[in-house]
Amino acid sequence: MFKLYYAPGTCALATHIALEEAGAPYPVDFGSQAQRSPEYLAINPKGRVPALVTENGTLTETPGLLLFVAQRFPKTELAPLSDPFALAQVQEFNSYLCSTVHVAHAHGRRGARWADDAAAIEAMKRKVPATMTECFELIERRLLKGPWVMGEQYTICDPYLFTIASWLEGDGVDTARLPRVMEHRRRMLARPAVQKAVAAEGTQIP
Amino acid sequence: MFKLYYAPGTCALATHIALEEAGAPYPVDFGSQAQRSPEYLAINPKGRVPALVTENGTLTETPGLLLFVAQRFPKTELAPLSDPFALAQVQEFNSYLCSTVHVAHAHGRRGARWADDAAAIEAMKRKVPATMTECFELIERRLLKGPWVMGEQYTICDPYLFTIASWLEGDGVDTARLPRVMEHRRRMLARPAVQKAVAAEGTQIP
Repeated sequence: MFKLYYAPGTCALATHIALEEAGAPYPVDFGSQAQRSPEYLAINPKGRVPALVTENGTLTETPGLLLFVAQRFPKTELAPLSDPFALAQVQEFNSYLCSTVHVAHAHGRRGARWADDAAAIEAMKRKVPATMTECFELIERRLLKGPWVMGEQYTICDPYLFTIASWLEGDGVDTARLPRVMEHRRRMLARPAVQKAVAAEGTQIP
Repeated sequence: MFKLYYAPGTCALATHIALEEAGAPYPVDFGSQAQRSPEYLAINPKGRVPALVTENGTLTETPGLLLFVAQRFPKTELAPLSDPFALAQVQEFNSYLCSTVHVAHAHGRRGARWADDAAAIEAMKRKVPATMTECFELIERRLLKGPWVMGEQYTICDPYLFTIASWLEGDGVDTARLPRVMEHRRRMLARPAVQKAVAAEGTQIP
């Protein structure tokens, strides 16, 4: 049995949705967790969510978790596993989300990771609308093929984009400039697996 | 024929090493590039290196590129491709490098990405030794299994760790506290593929 540690409003939602899409064929226990508690640090010394406890051990980091779900449940066809170029494109997109887009967002709430000075942390907050807009304009114009991120095939890129895009309004981004990203959100919200994960976490999607 | 766009001293070295390890069976053209030039932006609209031009199109983002090299040249056995948990561990490690460790380093040189204020950018620079030390203590104590990152098997995690660890001295980290990471560097420098890539880029490894 899997156990996914998550916290509402975090990127853990992406893995939560993927597990629901895969219809994980045995019970998945979704546990919300205080990320800095000693109990959780014993599971994930990084002190962040998500963490997935599997039959072989614990995994962290969303791009790794999403690839795991896709490969562990291949019948769900959540990634083009046997095509090196297509699979690299999936990991390229998810790497961009984790290393650039999620990082841009984090400067609005977690600036203390990168500076100790209060004024510097405020300066980081002020730039978040601009950096998130720049990231999502690239996604809108170049990276999101449509109707799904990779085109006709729904993949592990879609729950990850949906999750990070759910932060746009809170980050002060004008979503009227992102019609294709907003259409992707609506298409995601029509999927039962997405509805189930969102409801279970009590997440508010704008 | 592949063409890898790189710049010396960047994370492109990881993919460069992996291509050398794979002994890419046809010529690879390694091209240094001005990252914001119009010619390069036409290849990679993100304006960063690395970018790999393949027979199917262009790929970016180091974790995706490394997975591509491993899967495109499976005989080299650079990743446990058929084991979902083991492959997820590889992607987990590489995701940590790209989204946390590389990002911590980038605050020393690229602070303008996340704040416009000169004092804020200086505050970010000041914290780099502490954040890089924290990241590498986790790698030293928990993540680097030894002798290679994933244990006995050399994988695409190794050139990526080697590349980012080559920045430690420049980031003001006391490498005497990281004996296992330093041993990993020495082991890497004994490999012909690493020597070839480092020499080709003219990179200085401390």
